Amino acid sequence: MLIVGELINTSRKPIKQAVENKDAEYIKEIARKQAEAGAHYIDVNCGTLVRNEPEIMAWLVNLVKEAVDLPLCIDSPNPKALEVGLELAAERAQPMVNSISAEAERYNSVLPLVLKYKAKVVALLMDDSGMPDTAEQRIAIVRKLVAGLVQAGVPEDDIYIDPLVKPVSTGDSAGVEVLETLQFIRREYPAVHTICGLSNISYGLPNRPVLNQVFLIQTMTAGMDAYILDPLDRTLMGFYYASQALLGKDPYCSEYLKAHRSGLYQKD
Amino acid sequence: MLIVGELINTSRKPIKQAVENKDAEYIKEIARKQAEAGAHYIDVNCGTLVRNEPEIMAWLVNLVKEAVDLPLCIDSPNPKALEVGLELAAERAQPMVNSISAEAERYNSVLPLVLKYKAKVVALLMDDSGMPDTAEQRIAIVRKLVAGLVQAGVPEDDIYIDPLVKPVSTGDSAGVEVLETLQFIRREYPAVHTICGLSNISYGLPNRPVLNQVFLIQTMTAGMDAYILDPLDRTLMGFYYASQALLGKDPYCSEYLKAHRSGLYQKD
Repeated sequence: MLIVGELINTSRKPIKQAVENKDAEYIKEIARKQAEAGAHYIDVNCGTLVRNEPEIMAWLVNLVKEAVDLPLCIDSPNPKALEVGLELAAERAQPMVNSISAEAERYNSVLPLVLKYKAKVVALLMDDSGMPDTAEQRIAIVRKLVAGLVQAGVPEDDIYIDPLVKPVSTGDSAGVEVLETLQFIRREYPAVHTICGLSNISYGLPNRPVLNQVFLIQTMTAGMDAYILDPLDRTLMGFYYASQALLGKDPYCSEYLKAHRSGLYQKD
Repeated sequence: MLIVGELINTSRKPIKQAVENKDAEYIKEIARKQAEAGAHYIDVNCGTLVRNEPEIMAWLVNLVKEAVDLPLCIDSPNPKALEVGLELAAERAQPMVNSISAEAERYNSVLPLVLKYKAKVVALLMDDSGMPDTAEQRIAIVRKLVAGLVQAGVPEDDIYIDPLVKPVSTGDSAGVEVLETLQFIRREYPAVHTICGLSNISYGLPNRPVLNQVFLIQTMTAGMDAYILDPLDRTLMGFYYASQALLGKDPYCSEYLKAHRSGLYQKD
């Protein structure tokens, strides 16, 4: 299981302000806290600051590298910002690119960076015909993306398929189509990984944290093995450890018990 | 989905005291509260009071019938108590028997009652060789039990397989073996139902409510379609409605939204 800490993102107000104020300490503190909370990769996204994104990306990546020993996930729709981030991140350890898709322009501009930096890559199930609705549409894109990436030289073990989570408020089957896609990938491509963020599923509904927790457990049960999430969310991480234990992926429940002793769980 | 309200059980102290004090009002109130909270069946279990179990069973069943319109689940290891309860319960609506198993003595003494009262039946995956560990052992008992019950005249739709949940603290794979068994039943016996209680899974571990919530969601994802639980547990029921919505079993999330408006969820 791989946890990508999502907090260093300029769409979040405190991060935006820290960038504006050049508050390096705050950025480093958020990186450290995510590492302490169990993140395996630190995501860096400054895509909201389009005017000087590459420059800010470099500043953020260097701060994260100073603060923690973890590898980085470079998150941008802009190939220039990706390249700047990847070059700095790759000096540390194998970076992750977030993300490629089957859209021709994006695919062709991001693939060379994935290859150049031997990066892990988040592959979003979207092509030029738009966002898929059904599992069947998603599976067609999975086949195309995995075949293309593998042929280009990306190992299956470096591919993280993001099934494109849509809000269940826009269609009753939004969750089920994702679960079916995950089961297909586990069966047909056992070496390929799957990843998603959790908050899209609950968009437009009340009690979003509960829905996000439920979707974490449902997708883990269906075989998802990586998440982009807030590792400082103690309730969510509690559900994560409990789910790992009950899925038989935590020998003697030792990680679960360690998390309990560290006070991770909400009180009963 | 079918919810059996588990609260009228003399192993619970307040119920034991109510029986001792002949406090009919308390029993009726607990029946009413479970009905209001969404239970479809009311379980009645006085198995701890072995000396006069049939008599107490009759008293409890009559009180539940006075209090609510719901059908009853008659829960006992004692065929005499089962028969007394079933006769009274069957006057109301199709009762449920909790439980038969593949143990020869239990099977032979409970089957005639299931047939006589045309009851739904909880079929526990246990035989005379003891409690199963693996999914494979469970599946062998599923085949034997379903074949026997169907041949005797019990419709598949009246069979509720209880996969026998063991604590994950006694073996890392305790949860996974249950999930695999559920997937097998969904595939091979789509008309047969599956049911369980949730609390066994977490026995011996801290933060049991979190583990029980996680196991609810995991088993629902694997196809479980009935539970014996406390419907007054607002957090657990919140997870139940959220899980139904994300599994595409709640058109327009309307039950989820209704539960939200009725204040069911914990605060965010």
